[in-house]
Amino acid sequence: MNKAERTAIEPKREENYSEWYQQVIKAADLAENSEVRGCMVIKPWGFAIWENIKTYLDRMFKETGHQNAYFPIFIPLHYFEKEAEHIEGFAKECAVVTHSRLEADEQGKLKPAGELTEPYIVRPTSETIIGASFARWVNSYRDLPLLINQWANIVRWEMRTRLFLRTTEFLWQEGHTVHETEEDARLETLRMLDVYAKFAEEYLAIPVIKGAKTESEKFPGAVDTYCIEAMMQDKKALQCGTSHFLGQNFARASNIRFQNREGEFQYAWTTSWGVSTRLIGALIMTHSDDNGLVLPPKIAPAHIAIIPIYRNDEEKDKVMTLAHKLSNELRQVNFDGIPILTELDNRDLTSSERNWYWIKKGMPLRIEIGPRDISSNSVMISRRDENPKDKHRIMIEEVVDYCKTTLPEMQKNIFLKAKDFREQNTVKIDSKEEFYRYFTPKNEEEPEIHGGFAHSHWCGNPLCEEKIKEDLKVTIRCIPLESEKEEGKCIYCGQPSSQRVIFAKAY
Amino acid sequence: MNKAERTAIEPKREENYSEWYQQVIKAADLAENSEVRGCMVIKPWGFAIWENIKTYLDRMFKETGHQNAYFPIFIPLHYFEKEAEHIEGFAKECAVVTHSRLEADEQGKLKPAGELTEPYIVRPTSETIIGASFARWVNSYRDLPLLINQWANIVRWEMRTRLFLRTTEFLWQEGHTVHETEEDARLETLRMLDVYAKFAEEYLAIPVIKGAKTESEKFPGAVDTYCIEAMMQDKKALQCGTSHFLGQNFARASNIRFQNREGEFQYAWTTSWGVSTRLIGALIMTHSDDNGLVLPPKIAPAHIAIIPIYRNDEEKDKVMTLAHKLSNELRQVNFDGIPILTELDNRDLTSSERNWYWIKKGMPLRIEIGPRDISSNSVMISRRDENPKDKHRIMIEEVVDYCKTTLPEMQKNIFLKAKDFREQNTVKIDSKEEFYRYFTPKNEEEPEIHGGFAHSHWCGNPLCEEKIKEDLKVTIRCIPLESEKEEGKCIYCGQPSSQRVIFAKAY
Repeated sequence: MNKAERTAIEPKREENYSEWYQQVIKAADLAENSEVRGCMVIKPWGFAIWENIKTYLDRMFKETGHQNAYFPIFIPLHYFEKEAEHIEGFAKECAVVTHSRLEADEQGKLKPAGELTEPYIVRPTSETIIGASFARWVNSYRDLPLLINQWANIVRWEMRTRLFLRTTEFLWQEGHTVHETEEDARLETLRMLDVYAKFAEEYLAIPVIKGAKTESEKFPGAVDTYCIEAMMQDKKALQCGTSHFLGQNFARASNIRFQNREGEFQYAWTTSWGVSTRLIGALIMTHSDDNGLVLPPKIAPAHIAIIPIYRNDEEKDKVMTLAHKLSNELRQVNFDGIPILTELDNRDLTSSERNWYWIKKGMPLRIEIGPRDISSNSVMISRRDENPKDKHRIMIEEVVDYCKTTLPEMQKNIFLKAKDFREQNTVKIDSKEEFYRYFTPKNEEEPEIHGGFAHSHWCGNPLCEEKIKEDLKVTIRCIPLESEKEEGKCIYCGQPSSQRVIFAKAY
Repeated sequence: MNKAERTAIEPKREENYSEWYQQVIKAADLAENSEVRGCMVIKPWGFAIWENIKTYLDRMFKETGHQNAYFPIFIPLHYFEKEAEHIEGFAKECAVVTHSRLEADEQGKLKPAGELTEPYIVRPTSETIIGASFARWVNSYRDLPLLINQWANIVRWEMRTRLFLRTTEFLWQEGHTVHETEEDARLETLRMLDVYAKFAEEYLAIPVIKGAKTESEKFPGAVDTYCIEAMMQDKKALQCGTSHFLGQNFARASNIRFQNREGEFQYAWTTSWGVSTRLIGALIMTHSDDNGLVLPPKIAPAHIAIIPIYRNDEEKDKVMTLAHKLSNELRQVNFDGIPILTELDNRDLTSSERNWYWIKKGMPLRIEIGPRDISSNSVMISRRDENPKDKHRIMIEEVVDYCKTTLPEMQKNIFLKAKDFREQNTVKIDSKEEFYRYFTPKNEEEPEIHGGFAHSHWCGNPLCEEKIKEDLKVTIRCIPLESEKEEGKCIYCGQPSSQRVIFAKAY
């Protein structure tokens, strides 16, 4: 293998996408599995990405008038039972707390003791526990809208787990709002969907499609569920966030009533919306390559690795002086309103080892500084979105400007590349035969390779949806909000349809 | 009752301190009890204080080289059992997860199902679960020190709970570090104690005493526990934070070993340290008065309430124009490096109602703007650390400067007031009789009123400590780090002692 072909991650994406994903996480040191069933440990570099996601999203929530609060992690069983679809949706996979202490048995072995009179569920989502507070907080139309968000950990006892994408415990935010009218609640649902879409595209550089879920893919208890859907590099869809219009279902379950402008008591209208650490999985699978993680600069924990290179103390002095000077200068400036962060990597490793370390971690820029560079009054800069061997010679006095302009350029570049990939793998299909061929693996050895997104007509019948799912493991990802009405025939049954929907395999 | 005597909180502190505390929380709308046993709901104003605590502490942790990460909420029972004192300390009050789903029984009633082969404990602290990761992460002395922090929720099944001070679930941060040598680990333990003390004094304006805990008050499994202790306004002590030197106890329990500089494998030295939402309780009980919450400006969610007053549309235009102008100007400036935040309160309430609303919430400054003020080119400003009826007439062009200089002055003022109170209620006692009198309630009707802090000699015998606790409910809060050695006699048994310790009743 010659140098140009060298990749840091094995297997490559095309060889085994799922294993490649695990290896990127390992190489970038983002997270690891724990011995606790399906629970992950989020390591510092991975957690720093989550901290950035939190910071920027939180700012957007506050700019749209939301306040943070915190509600109990435990939900009494009878709260859950109040909303029939809701309990049905979550009962099969939840952590149940039944005891409040441990006691040694006769053999000295510790056993659960102090059985609770009513079991508690570790929150798989907080509509019902937050609803209990909202019922106390909301009395009059003057108390509305009530716009609350919570950053929290969540537990769902998932059968098959995968780091970031599906874990028993995960971190998320959940917005919960209460409104006077159906219209206000519907507007809020779509406003927050827009916030998610804007965040995904502008910060994570992930192009998304906004749409409504079909009846079968809705949140348990919601009237309408909206989502943002993205295409991963294996052409599968990943749901990146959801926003639910809950109608008066949860207001009824939790007794959230208020005195309206006419002086009468009525049930309120509520919404909920959330994104989770799953976004980190989306980030990895959308942008990373066979050399490891690729991070859009706006979400990266740091932006520039500075790699000093020297052979003796004399060279060290000069090189380190310049390295510190550049690092300090760069840390004074912003790009797109974000302060530039540098990592000066002076570890006792070869420059190649240090370069690859940062390549695998997705550091956007790398600056190498050696004694010869100082003589020529320049440094070598490499971009993570280019070939690892490509280096640009930049005059020292131009380094700050180069970085300031290159980072936003990379952000844009990474987004456009992902958008281009999605467009190249999205087709309109109007024949059932073609549809089945599109979603059928090309050969046995590459079971994951399939078409991509198909825009096809659907009559609205859940049975057609179900049949397609059975046959192809393909689901309706969403009914896009921003597509035109168009007469057509259902791809499965041929009955009339008024709109195309997006079909895809999904995570 | 004349106006000067009017107070917003009933009962007053001196009437019933414990009930006063609950009423301040209610009046400031900080938190409420939930139906989940001992779990609180942290409401937006209370949570915003916690967000500020997080922001500033997190910055201090990062400045001292720590990184954030996240570890599973569940701890397998056998992890816990590895450290004998540790399990002994936490087994009596922990939430135990025993099942992974719910199933309807014959009557249709939901019951826990899917029993786990090993129960999980909801973390009451994370030494053992984080230790399992650290055992994987640490291989060589080159991997050390490992400096990790986690922001998380914690569950301890406390018998008697009180909002913020002691709740079944609470929020905290827990630092966990691994070191090559005992000396390094001991330095870290004290470094973080210093960070806590600095934070408490500079941000929360709470004067604290740094000290070591006695054997009986140590963290279960620690070699040494250090703490910061503060005096509340009922003269009781509140432990505000702890830092533990864990020796090699948890390294042995979790098998955290590394190859040292001599090439040999050895157990590492670890520390852990934490502060929690209890700090909000400390904040309330240290500074608040009979009119409600008093917040040091540096930790307040907002700094200035602007209260426009007008009778008609013409006045409204003028007053609101000035209100917006002042609000915008104030939001451009910082005090002590913190951006000033304003709340323009234009609600349909009297100016008195709006003033009292913000007084009770602890807003540091209030600016009233009425039509007459505009004519006189001035506004009325009130300080939360002064009498509610005191108002200062400030010329409009001087408002920004006034606020910029007054906020830091208030911060200092509030700290000095608390420090003065502690000093006035701290005495050296050398006679057993006097000691017993000092800590005995003056009469039956005021059971909470007692002396304060007593600096007295203690021989080091746990039995003397235990007797005093039995007799008076008084404990050794700490052996102060910054006090001089001094020969004396144990306040209980008269045996020789080399240092005074701090005795007090405590939360």
